[in-house]
Amino acid sequence: MEFNLANNLHSLRASAPLVHNITNYVVMNFTANALLAIGASPVMSHAAEEAEDMVSIAGALVVNIGTLSPEWVKGMKLAMRKAAQTGRPIILDPVGAGATPYRNAVLTELLETAAPTIIRGNASEIMALAGTNIQTKGVDSTASSAESMEAAKALSLKYGSVISVSGETDVIVSGTQAAFVSGGVPLMTKITGMGCTASALAGAFAAVSSDPFHAAVSAAAAMSVCGELAYRSAKLPGSFQIAFLDALADISPAHLAELSKVKFTSL
Amino acid sequence: MEFNLANNLHSLRASAPLVHNITNYVVMNFTANALLAIGASPVMSHAAEEAEDMVSIAGALVVNIGTLSPEWVKGMKLAMRKAAQTGRPIILDPVGAGATPYRNAVLTELLETAAPTIIRGNASEIMALAGTNIQTKGVDSTASSAESMEAAKALSLKYGSVISVSGETDVIVSGTQAAFVSGGVPLMTKITGMGCTASALAGAFAAVSSDPFHAAVSAAAAMSVCGELAYRSAKLPGSFQIAFLDALADISPAHLAELSKVKFTSL
Amino acid sequence: MEFNLANNLHSLRASAPLVHNITNYVVMNFTANALLAIGASPVMSHAAEEAEDMVSIAGALVVNIGTLSPEWVKGMKLAMRKAAQTGRPIILDPVGAGATPYRNAVLTELLETAAPTIIRGNASEIMALAGTNIQTKGVDSTASSAESMEAAKALSLKYGSVISVSGETDVIVSGTQAAFVSGGVPLMTKITGMGCTASALAGAFAAVSSDPFHAAVSAAAAMSVCGELAYRSAKLPGSFQIAFLDALADISPAHLAELSKVKFTSL
Repeated sequence: MEFNLANNLHSLRASAPLVHNITNYVVMNFTANALLAIGASPVMSHAAEEAEDMVSIAGALVVNIGTLSPEWVKGMKLAMRKAAQTGRPIILDPVGAGATPYRNAVLTELLETAAPTIIRGNASEIMALAGTNIQTKGVDSTASSAESMEAAKALSLKYGSVISVSGETDVIVSGTQAAFVSGGVPLMTKITGMGCTASALAGAFAAVSSDPFHAAVSAAAAMSVCGELAYRSAKLPGSFQIAFLDALADISPAHLAELSKVKFTSL
Repeated sequence: MEFNLANNLHSLRASAPLVHNITNYVVMNFTANALLAIGASPVMSHAAEEAEDMVSIAGALVVNIGTLSPEWVKGMKLAMRKAAQTGRPIILDPVGAGATPYRNAVLTELLETAAPTIIRGNASEIMALAGTNIQTKGVDSTASSAESMEAAKALSLKYGSVISVSGETDVIVSGTQAAFVSGGVPLMTKITGMGCTASALAGAFAAVSSDPFHAAVSAAAAMSVCGELAYRSAKLPGSFQIAFLDALADISPAHLAELSKVKFTSL
Repeated sequence: MEFNLANNLHSLRASAPLVHNITNYVVMNFTANALLAIGASPVMSHAAEEAEDMVSIAGALVVNIGTLSPEWVKGMKLAMRKAAQTGRPIILDPVGAGATPYRNAVLTELLETAAPTIIRGNASEIMALAGTNIQTKGVDSTASSAESMEAAKALSLKYGSVISVSGETDVIVSGTQAAFVSGGVPLMTKITGMGCTASALAGAFAAVSSDPFHAAVSAAAAMSVCGELAYRSAKLPGSFQIAFLDALADISPAHLAELSKVKFTSL
């Protein structure tokens, strides 16, 4: 199947998939608005009491451990298991992997619960997840996406997951295939929740696609292109985040495809 | 008492009522800013340990089950009981009613704890709450407010509550009286938390009014008018949400009354 | 050491300190974006399971009790104790002090756990914390910062903390020295989380300074100046909050120093 970004965005908008997010407090509002802006239908819900029921009416599950705590991990595990059982794509965002032992322990637990369809993180997080010895600084990356290639490949083979590494150039790895998505602007690293939004969009694209590799690439491309569009009118972070939401809503499938910079390769 | 929207907004601003919100993580920031913008004073607090004390210094209580969990339900129940005992208006926003059995069970529990003064939701939520057989899609409505008239009337009679149904035309029902608030713009459905904000504003108006029916109508009218004003300068969701907050702060009582489209009727 | 605001902002940006925030749900996104905008690196994390590990990689700890609950207090105490043991500055924001007995009890517990380096609040909160008999209204102040001078001095002597009182004129007290920071605009009180952001910025400045008094003054000055700059382009609250974030990112150290209005005195 050939990669067709315009079609993928068109499908997303045509079906407006319900995306079930168990995500962190910091980004919930921005993520929900980003999902709405691009054309998806977000639901944020974390309670163990309804995790399985909620994921059962959703098109995809996005699990993000940004502000994790034990009660939330219960809901994450129930939702992930149910998603796996019912064939729904699972996107895992390992926020701050490597920053604390607790975070690492929870990630191990989650990965044992169900293999994610897509794991999206920054280079530090992906390398920490793969067991590479890496210094992390809270939730920000200290490595480039290129440096994480080996880690991404190893993780992809281990879990059968698509690994999407955000950075100056995004690297998406699925087994022995890879894609490089360039574009975007440095200002994107100065807005909280940009990475989390990339994960959520991956969920929206995965909900309407049978190819999670293409879904992950589509999400990365949409982030990069809309970042560039936003930067045309807003050079400072407050107004940039608003312009970014506007761009997600405004962009047409054809325009997205035209502006995207995606290169596929074999590893 | 005749409906006087200009007076109602004037009263709200003159007394800047403290509105106690037990609401969901996604919308807390936007809701608090909306309450501040229109002239109220928000407090967000959910702990069972202080629920009764907090509601006792507030002019109204707004309970919103968007991202509910058992610990929060404890605080909601304590606050609702105290509000009922002390004659403070209670606004219930049954986010996602019908989406999961847990959500339905919690709503039953809350409604048994204290009858809300106002219940505000979308048509799907109101119909689910009334026991109508309705398909829901997460937190978004799949029915129009007109379709929910019977459900709204039944709920209003059952609990003695004002029922406010948001939609293309908002329908507000109180026993055998009804009001229709038209206006607003479709873009409002593309911003997360617009419905939650409508509930919070209903709390602010109810805090300064002895007539909860008029309070609910005033909140619906303020939402619709400010949505239209915002749309004059912002056609995309990021900038629209900002323009909406600006409009809430900028609008004068007289201008609000002039632009509002409210029709009263008997059922 | 002379107060050098330009140097202080320069240092902050040069080292981009990791600031560990245990803060409330309402302001997390805005606070994180404000920290990123001014040049710091925020991490939001509250779980007791990782509180000590997270603070150990951070340059400062900011504890804000806005939407507190018992589980969170556990994490706050562990993080505060660890920060004190390892010499990291602790900033305490006693949101809503005096509003409920639970809030007061938690504050007593936190203050017994570790003496904060800086306590930043509005006048009502500082007076409530000092045991002054004061009426509070939720999380908004009912007194002026000038009225809180005695309370601030008493608190500073009791805990050895810098006390920063936000108001029309900010008052910062450290033992027998005081600073007055004027400027800012009234519209800042109409944005939720402005005070919380002031506390977070105090954390960022304290992380890169050996003088917490100067750090608190620097944060207050940055807030006031950026508020004034934002107001030049935005007179309404929605657009103002965006312009404020833009100003935090845009301002140069020299420009900040030039526009700031700081007066030092002895008590």
